[in-house]
Amino acid sequence: MTLERSTATWRLVVAYRGAGFAGFAAQRGERTVQGELERALSALAGEPVRVRGAGRTDAGVHARGQVVSARFASRVPVEKMVLACNSQLANDLAVLRADAPFEGFDAKRFSVGKRYVYRVHTQAWHDPFAGATSWHVRQRLDVDAMIEAAAAFVGERDFESFRSQHCDAAHARRYLWRSEVRHERGLLEYEVRGNAFCRHMVRCLAGTLVDVGRGRFTPADMTRLLDARDRAQAGVTAPAQGLTLEEVYYPDALAHAGIPADATFPGFPVTAEDWPVDLPPACG
Amino acid sequence: MTLERSTATWRLVVAYRGAGFAGFAAQRGERTVQGELERALSALAGEPVRVRGAGRTDAGVHARGQVVSARFASRVPVEKMVLACNSQLANDLAVLRADAPFEGFDAKRFSVGKRYVYRVHTQAWHDPFAGATSWHVRQRLDVDAMIEAAAAFVGERDFESFRSQHCDAAHARRYLWRSEVRHERGLLEYEVRGNAFCRHMVRCLAGTLVDVGRGRFTPADMTRLLDARDRAQAGVTAPAQGLTLEEVYYPDALAHAGIPADATFPGFPVTAEDWPVDLPPACG
Repeated sequence: MTLERSTATWRLVVAYRGAGFAGFAAQRGERTVQGELERALSALAGEPVRVRGAGRTDAGVHARGQVVSARFASRVPVEKMVLACNSQLANDLAVLRADAPFEGFDAKRFSVGKRYVYRVHTQAWHDPFAGATSWHVRQRLDVDAMIEAAAAFVGERDFESFRSQHCDAAHARRYLWRSEVRHERGLLEYEVRGNAFCRHMVRCLAGTLVDVGRGRFTPADMTRLLDARDRAQAGVTAPAQGLTLEEVYYPDALAHAGIPADATFPGFPVTAEDWPVDLPPACG
Repeated sequence: MTLERSTATWRLVVAYRGAGFAGFAAQRGERTVQGELERALSALAGEPVRVRGAGRTDAGVHARGQVVSARFASRVPVEKMVLACNSQLANDLAVLRADAPFEGFDAKRFSVGKRYVYRVHTQAWHDPFAGATSWHVRQRLDVDAMIEAAAAFVGERDFESFRSQHCDAAHARRYLWRSEVRHERGLLEYEVRGNAFCRHMVRCLAGTLVDVGRGRFTPADMTRLLDARDRAQAGVTAPAQGLTLEEVYYPDALAHAGIPADATFPGFPVTAEDWPVDLPPACG
């Protein structure tokens, strides 16, 4: 059987352990997620392929559901694309799903939002297993205060106090529809879902919440920190290895995103322009 | 406050990621679990300390509940011993609990049994996270056949066909009271509990069960393989990184071991000789 070589714009869902990469974005002389994916896809296509990610992750940050887009020609049919990609990749980076939604799909432009989880483990000892994907905080944390504080970030807020001073976004207004702390058997998880995130934003929020747990701030302080619009007043930037990009949301698959029915933020409610083909009726 | 220096025989429960160690047993010039623990405890004691493990684990095998014993003098009180040990250890090895049950306690001699879990992940891709502690088997496995086959190993059996040819135990008769395959969302776990294990025994059992899943053997073949007493007839030795020593059982804490009421094997039922002090009445 000879398969036709055909060109398509692909959507690839990828997972990676952050430890082995100098971040997502390609950098000359460094091993990066984008660089490894471009190398793998270029091998499949037989010519240079450029990859675009839904978001950049910092060095050390993990992903279980990063999404990238790439336009290239190959003889690989859709049902074999996952296998073909993974045959070119090392064990710390995997393609989990592949489809080609429409010509011109762009992983960043068409994304509606993202889900991140920041993990902290709080045992007396550094956990040899969970430690690779979480921050070890030895102090006893007031989890109830953290749960209360996290709720202050829900809605449309200006996160100026919670982004890196090197963030190059024009402003820090973002819409979060979930900001939630959970705790079970020594593992604490902070989950955020929002339309977009500034540089280091989740790590600044997580670090500030841990500072709440330690007693440095009260839950009521969160409104004050938001209003201050001053990075220096908020808490620490939590270390990269605790952060995982869990999911990127697109208009054709919003069932699990949990976006409130009355939400309005740039790109939502979604329209036919946001997703030019086969937009599911519930999203229109 | 000056604390008295006192000598005791300690029981330490330890966890480690196998990847960074050339196995448990000390070897000159290699980083080993025993070597690292001896280095740490010698630093606390201010003199050389020897450590004895409940069992040796191979290079690459993990533990969440290995137990070691060590007799040494220190000024560290029991409630600070976990912290004191961990302050001397790298992030891939941790002491989880510490007590000093009685003078002369020996982690190997007094253990009643062990629990191991062998993990396999069966997605099309190598999982960047689960991959560090499991074996990636790409083929579709007949899990029902594996569940049925695993049951054949329960009871007192001769595991000659399921041990390394370099095993130096006098015989291979061992008593397993649990041998069970579970499967959930792409992760397959094989759990065994038994009084003792030969070299590579769990990995030989797990490899043979995966061969059942692949269709090389039927569940009914397991009895034939046991009877053959020939390593060459059984299945592959599953790779080390899928295996974790989860727990070691002692007479003073058997509530979660699940040993059948009518079980008899060397060291069980336990007697006052097996555990010279404070033997809980239910174990007598």
